[in-house]
Amino acid sequence: MNFASDNAGGVHPRIMAAIAAANEGPVPSYGGDSITRVAQDRLRELFDAPEAAVHFVVSGTAANALSLALLSPGWGKVFCHTDAHVQTSETGAPEFFTAGAKLVPVPGAAGKITPEALAEVLEVNGRDSVHAGQNAALTLTNATEWGTVYSPDEVEALSAIARAEGLGVHMDGARFANALAGLDVAPADLTWRAGVDILSLGGTKNGCMAVEAVLIFDPAKSEEFAFRRKRAGALVSKHRYLSAQILAWLDGDLWLQLARHANAMAHELGLGLARLPGVRIDQRVDSNAVFATIPAELHRRACEAGISYHLWPHTQTGDGEEPVSIRLVCGWDTRLDEVNAALQALA
Amino acid sequence: MNFASDNAGGVHPRIMAAIAAANEGPVPSYGGDSITRVAQDRLRELFDAPEAAVHFVVSGTAANALSLALLSPGWGKVFCHTDAHVQTSETGAPEFFTAGAKLVPVPGAAGKITPEALAEVLEVNGRDSVHAGQNAALTLTNATEWGTVYSPDEVEALSAIARAEGLGVHMDGARFANALAGLDVAPADLTWRAGVDILSLGGTKNGCMAVEAVLIFDPAKSEEFAFRRKRAGALVSKHRYLSAQILAWLDGDLWLQLARHANAMAHELGLGLARLPGVRIDQRVDSNAVFATIPAELHRRACEAGISYHLWPHTQTGDGEEPVSIRLVCGWDTRLDEVNAALQALA
Amino acid sequence: MNFASDNAGGVHPRIMAAIAAANEGPVPSYGGDSITRVAQDRLRELFDAPEAAVHFVVSGTAANALSLALLSPGWGKVFCHTDAHVQTSETGAPEFFTAGAKLVPVPGAAGKITPEALAEVLEVNGRDSVHAGQNAALTLTNATEWGTVYSPDEVEALSAIARAEGLGVHMDGARFANALAGLDVAPADLTWRAGVDILSLGGTKNGCMAVEAVLIFDPAKSEEFAFRRKRAGALVSKHRYLSAQILAWLDGDLWLQLARHANAMAHELGLGLARLPGVRIDQRVDSNAVFATIPAELHRRACEAGISYHLWPHTQTGDGEEPVSIRLVCGWDTRLDEVNAALQALA
Amino acid sequence: MNFASDNAGGVHPRIMAAIAAANEGPVPSYGGDSITRVAQDRLRELFDAPEAAVHFVVSGTAANALSLALLSPGWGKVFCHTDAHVQTSETGAPEFFTAGAKLVPVPGAAGKITPEALAEVLEVNGRDSVHAGQNAALTLTNATEWGTVYSPDEVEALSAIARAEGLGVHMDGARFANALAGLDVAPADLTWRAGVDILSLGGTKNGCMAVEAVLIFDPAKSEEFAFRRKRAGALVSKHRYLSAQILAWLDGDLWLQLARHANAMAHELGLGLARLPGVRIDQRVDSNAVFATIPAELHRRACEAGISYHLWPHTQTGDGEEPVSIRLVCGWDTRLDEVNAALQALA
Repeated sequence: MNFASDNAGGVHPRIMAAIAAANEGPVPSYGGDSITRVAQDRLRELFDAPEAAVHFVVSGTAANALSLALLSPGWGKVFCHTDAHVQTSETGAPEFFTAGAKLVPVPGAAGKITPEALAEVLEVNGRDSVHAGQNAALTLTNATEWGTVYSPDEVEALSAIARAEGLGVHMDGARFANALAGLDVAPADLTWRAGVDILSLGGTKNGCMAVEAVLIFDPAKSEEFAFRRKRAGALVSKHRYLSAQILAWLDGDLWLQLARHANAMAHELGLGLARLPGVRIDQRVDSNAVFATIPAELHRRACEAGISYHLWPHTQTGDGEEPVSIRLVCGWDTRLDEVNAALQALA
Repeated sequence: MNFASDNAGGVHPRIMAAIAAANEGPVPSYGGDSITRVAQDRLRELFDAPEAAVHFVVSGTAANALSLALLSPGWGKVFCHTDAHVQTSETGAPEFFTAGAKLVPVPGAAGKITPEALAEVLEVNGRDSVHAGQNAALTLTNATEWGTVYSPDEVEALSAIARAEGLGVHMDGARFANALAGLDVAPADLTWRAGVDILSLGGTKNGCMAVEAVLIFDPAKSEEFAFRRKRAGALVSKHRYLSAQILAWLDGDLWLQLARHANAMAHELGLGLARLPGVRIDQRVDSNAVFATIPAELHRRACEAGISYHLWPHTQTGDGEEPVSIRLVCGWDTRLDEVNAALQALA
Repeated sequence: MNFASDNAGGVHPRIMAAIAAANEGPVPSYGGDSITRVAQDRLRELFDAPEAAVHFVVSGTAANALSLALLSPGWGKVFCHTDAHVQTSETGAPEFFTAGAKLVPVPGAAGKITPEALAEVLEVNGRDSVHAGQNAALTLTNATEWGTVYSPDEVEALSAIARAEGLGVHMDGARFANALAGLDVAPADLTWRAGVDILSLGGTKNGCMAVEAVLIFDPAKSEEFAFRRKRAGALVSKHRYLSAQILAWLDGDLWLQLARHANAMAHELGLGLARLPGVRIDQRVDSNAVFATIPAELHRRACEAGISYHLWPHTQTGDGEEPVSIRLVCGWDTRLDEVNAALQALA
Repeated sequence: MNFASDNAGGVHPRIMAAIAAANEGPVPSYGGDSITRVAQDRLRELFDAPEAAVHFVVSGTAANALSLALLSPGWGKVFCHTDAHVQTSETGAPEFFTAGAKLVPVPGAAGKITPEALAEVLEVNGRDSVHAGQNAALTLTNATEWGTVYSPDEVEALSAIARAEGLGVHMDGARFANALAGLDVAPADLTWRAGVDILSLGGTKNGCMAVEAVLIFDPAKSEEFAFRRKRAGALVSKHRYLSAQILAWLDGDLWLQLARHANAMAHELGLGLARLPGVRIDQRVDSNAVFATIPAELHRRACEAGISYHLWPHTQTGDGEEPVSIRLVCGWDTRLDEVNAALQALA
């Protein structure tokens, strides 16, 4: 019963089949093949963004760091949530790719930046001087690291503040599908129509093998991205196998189906956990993760039952009598019977 | 009839099958899975290097640049052949990953550095001062960019010079299998026994989808590599699909079979071309590429017949009456009937 | 009446005379001259650190960033106070010179990090993983940005925590003389004996023209510093003019006399301000700066009287009816009659 | 008798006096003072470039590397002479400041790039692709590292080729005054009118203490320079002492007088050496350096007589019976009696 990570799951069979089907004879490398062109066009169409540049990489860290490097110089400041993946879990990749930009954490409940918090941090960082550096970009994670989701209106409100200060806006969409699946809005509504300049669109956690798309809504930055991707060692030569994943993932809205399923499993899991005595659900379950605080006794029982999840934050030891805070993630491949079995084991 | 690149070819069926077979339920991500452990062990065994650190990435540029960053500080000099891939075709990735090292080209016929040439360039760069920088590393490509191969003795002679000057030694083995296939020596003989500290071992061009192994024979550098790979965005989360490629590729010496086949096809192609009037074979065909200079008329006929290859160097236009110099590459998937058809079309 | 900055002041006459006196015929450049050797020896002696490496640069930002680059790799974390100069006023220089390290702010009253706060932030950053990065260094500013001073015991307590976690310890001593002047301890007590690995020792703000010494108490890092300084463009060719400043500055304890004078002036200023109605002194006056909150009316009067200082923080406008918070800095050249005149104008 | 380096010389008395005279009370720091404004205006006037941005730093390496970073991205190529200071003597500073650009050496006699050589190297580097990188800038040293000088026509011919390929043009004018002194043309003729975008104008080797001006003829890049300079630790706080040097240096054409004198001394020295048996003058003496090959016997006699100079290249040992190649540099402070004494000692 794996609730540790949506990176632990495998590849959806239709996506695996598409990879195998792409394996037909020689084609141009480095993205010059027709599968890549079709996949790029399909994303442009889906996002109602015929001019957007579309590039593929194999990791979210590469997608995010390369994107931020388009928005911030080495003396820039990139504003992000205190718990943003770029800040906590990318080992300085944004600083490395930008050649020195500073990530400025913005605190906020539920993993979300509020307009008030952003405005306040911007004011504190108001000196756009050679001593203090240049305010350069805002990055939002959607769905957030705490499983919550920004609505189009929320994104727009934050983008408006950012743009008024001359910042570019990036969205880390490692779980963009999970965010979109619960909102019933168009991809464009949650991105460029709400002021987003660049989207890292994650496929890997949602049924793909290893592919993240970067959508640059202002195509003028596309050439720079191409140079940056290559010198990062992030340009995959046999590109068709990335593009084939994207095509199968989008085909018949598979990406949204998988995300909706993962979200539904998390919803079930959250409901079930909430009914257990002593359990507190710590965040709204807007996407595919449940954050809860549970009694130490329950934590021990879960370990014995082979239910895997992460302590969140990691600094807890989980071996005392204090309640522990945990993160449980559902994936496209989480089964209802697994959720039920886990809940039963804990009841 | 594709002779343009061994990146154009697909994935060998046994490797594709192994990828599909790895798609079973959730496993730990980021290399914590058992397939990865087995693949790492298998490489250590194959190279008779039980202590070596083994890491996987998806591109040769990442493998090379991350490796060189272990050997050279930002004020270091990395000696390489004038035509080395790291120098001509990686967009400054080594400079980026080392934070500023300087690649110092060493000229040499047939893509190979000679001991004399290396000694001479080292002498010219002899000032290890704060003004001139620090001589840091030697990198050899094997097989070379001109399809030739260094023997263990040749590698050892160059390594000895390098080590006497305090340089680390890296081998860009994007086509290591092709080099090894023609030599009938053990992998260790061509690497650490000959003084190589780090090997970039290329799978992608030789039947894999996207995987390059980095073998660090001194494991003390392994942790640094792990940090560097992650912050480069080059740590693939669903790692098992990389490792599965490696395992299938090594299984039953498939990697050498594929390389031998590609080499044999190049040999045939070279022999056939050499028989055509006005054609000059420019390099020994030691591995899977043929470099030739052909009459303009023959070049036009090849284009019309749909025979694809690269002008080499790229700066030629190929549209005049002058002979053109070309590179033809054979892959694991090049068929003898293709080679024969191409030769027939040109005859 | 300048209380804006100790960078506004000129050069002490004895130091200017020493610069002029160094202007005798040709001498070896880049630090090979005898004045430099004597100045280095003098600092080693003063700090009771015969093995220490000593290097000179012309700015505190260079001194700090080059020092931190010796202690942190690009994937490292450098812990500093929220208001540390390296964090707020060096435009990403530490991130640039380390090639990507992340500065982690530690909050604390009066510009000082407490052992509790450091321990707490270290715990939150406890994951020394490829995802989170490597905890690498602690940097303390002494005197702090808020004019307060760490005692040797305080430095030692923080260093002990840092060292237990494997961190190196740097001290930004842009106003080290001002800190030392009020403590009556030996330079060694406040640095290496208290666990400091590298000291940036500032001369410029305290009567010099442009010179900061970097003392590396573990000389093994000295060669790396030399390479880093040169490639930063921070190696001054006519080095004697830097070294001559240092010698005159140390001669007869001039550096401490100047610092004591500046501190005394700040003390007077603080006492005088505290007597004015509606004025609140916000920090202990441990060194040469006074931080106060004053009524709007008083602020206007000060401006009219030509008393210059900075609003602190800079984000205040100072043009309303709210009290404003200000920073007043005294220098080696602040005269008691200036202080009195300022106080009189405000009374 | 020092002919080792023009960095060994002291500061001209009028410049030292100007530094002392600038030492009057507090003034705004970081270049906000009036001496700086006047010095900047004076340079704009002198170069007939009212819109140019002017910045001061303390080293040629900083001036060059910061300038090149304005012209080349991290994936760019910077074309320079094989023996250019940026290539041989700046420890990778250009690579560091550009975050990875590659310096591409262009060979040429007498330290000079010819239009033919530039065109040829550009053609070889013709692939402006994500694999090969982007051709970004040309940098010319004037006077060159071999003491020769480019005329305005020569600069213009090279700039024209560079601009046709989209390259920016930088001039390393560490010895610009020495070049100009021999040409009898206006500063503008040798720079922006001949196609130069940015000039590093060296004061230090020509009588100043430590100051180099960067003239950016397109002022749009000025703000970026300011950020880059600060985060390089290259923004001197007490800026007036840099600016005062510049003003005194330009006043009454002192800079050209000093350069003319140094050139004249080199001319004398060259003439005298040429008369000695077995001596070969290797380069035209266009500026303040003499390059010669002399018999081993003469070299020994020079050492005994206390005549200091550099072996050029440095890789020679100078302790055999072979002739040695040497560089002798004259400075603003070289006296005719020194030249004569040296020649007499060798005669």
